[in-house]
Amino acid sequence: MSVDWLEIEKKAKAWTYEAASLVKKSLANPIHIESKSNPNDLVTEVDKAIESFFYHKIQGEFPEHFFLGEEGTAEDLDSLNGTVWIIDPIDGTMNFVHQKYNFAISVGVYHEGKGMIGLVYDVMNDELFHAIRGHGAYINNEELVPVKERPLNESIIGLNAKWLVEEKNPYKNPLKALVRDVRSIRSYGSAALEIAYVAADRLDGYISVRLSPWDYAAGIVLLEEVGCKASTFHGESLDFLTPSSVIVGKPQLHKEMVSTYVGEEL
Amino acid sequence: MSVDWLEIEKKAKAWTYEAASLVKKSLANPIHIESKSNPNDLVTEVDKAIESFFYHKIQGEFPEHFFLGEEGTAEDLDSLNGTVWIIDPIDGTMNFVHQKYNFAISVGVYHEGKGMIGLVYDVMNDELFHAIRGHGAYINNEELVPVKERPLNESIIGLNAKWLVEEKNPYKNPLKALVRDVRSIRSYGSAALEIAYVAADRLDGYISVRLSPWDYAAGIVLLEEVGCKASTFHGESLDFLTPSSVIVGKPQLHKEMVSTYVGEEL
Repeated sequence: MSVDWLEIEKKAKAWTYEAASLVKKSLANPIHIESKSNPNDLVTEVDKAIESFFYHKIQGEFPEHFFLGEEGTAEDLDSLNGTVWIIDPIDGTMNFVHQKYNFAISVGVYHEGKGMIGLVYDVMNDELFHAIRGHGAYINNEELVPVKERPLNESIIGLNAKWLVEEKNPYKNPLKALVRDVRSIRSYGSAALEIAYVAADRLDGYISVRLSPWDYAAGIVLLEEVGCKASTFHGESLDFLTPSSVIVGKPQLHKEMVSTYVGEEL
Repeated sequence: MSVDWLEIEKKAKAWTYEAASLVKKSLANPIHIESKSNPNDLVTEVDKAIESFFYHKIQGEFPEHFFLGEEGTAEDLDSLNGTVWIIDPIDGTMNFVHQKYNFAISVGVYHEGKGMIGLVYDVMNDELFHAIRGHGAYINNEELVPVKERPLNESIIGLNAKWLVEEKNPYKNPLKALVRDVRSIRSYGSAALEIAYVAADRLDGYISVRLSPWDYAAGIVLLEEVGCKASTFHGESLDFLTPSSVIVGKPQLHKEMVSTYVGEEL
């Protein structure tokens, strides 16, 4: 029996909008913040509640599907066999806490390792970036056009300036060279949104030294629909199970960034 | 006779919305781009047309007012005597060209050197940041609350990563230290918007090694209404006539950024 991805996407969208209205309501109250591995890695009770909301919706509707979420609601996965929902309930938690702005709900659905559905929802700006494999990518139902390349020196790249000053970052110098050579740098504080912006041609590329699967799983479905590329810094496929470096962009630019800047084994 | 600033603001807002609809219309057609002093300093015919639109509106309604604009429509000014409109028709021209997103119309009205009216309009997101001296600052008529301080290591600062790699930038090392010490960095590519974001508590501070008066004139009126500070890197008042370094932020943070990082004579 073939899977009806359009039907699954319809449900995923409805849950995303419902989750967003819960998030918006939560902003009326003080947000309780904890930090995770380091003081700047924040998590709130809202992140946890939204992840739990998705987990229970998916369990109820698709009990045979698997679940991978930032807040660890479900068991660890060691493969992408079957159908897996990869969810970041609030991507850009620091923005959520500080700005109450520029954060996203990120929902990716993978089947036997392939990205089938990608939703990145900018809650406060009411922009839903959405794609079903083979059906194109959209912002709020308006289709995104296949990307057009620009030369590297006219490209705008998403990159957090923190990576340029962190002593422990082995890619500091190659990233500095890249920042010097491109036209300009932007940083919005949400990987999911920044990857969606590449798909939407607001950025030509986006780079992060370390991301987790839920940060990029949905965005990469968008990218594939408009002809963009995604890989680790060494040009390897992302595995969607473990954290890694991530570089995405228009195909020529992606290739040039990997080969000239960050692709060297360090 | 006292000046009716509310009446002037009403006109400034109406013109801003009218200009925005002209800008939006222009996005349907290919944009003709020229570059100015360097290949990354872009100007389009739209920047020029919008500046001319404001100039003629102001000339018609307030022939005794002066005009200072990015595209040099009017004569050079050498003082802020009388009433001066300081306008950036499109702040974030690179975003306008590349992203068709995240650019602003910036309108400041100064009287005998004091900022009386500040409007920063995010055209695509339909967010108008507006203030009249002594009447508070607003986003789309919702009043912004006076700022609350955060410690520097929990602050989010607006800064373009280009400043960290530019060999000729004398502030490279102090800015690197600042980037290391704060919680995170954002960069949106429009100084007017980033200064408005400080007023709106989406950023705690914003720093640029070189800005022109039209980039910050409107934003600073917003900042004053919520209790934020603005100065050159050395803590001196901005003169609104010549380009300079600009550092803005919540009062304690602003003070600490000047005294600990960028205030030293270099």
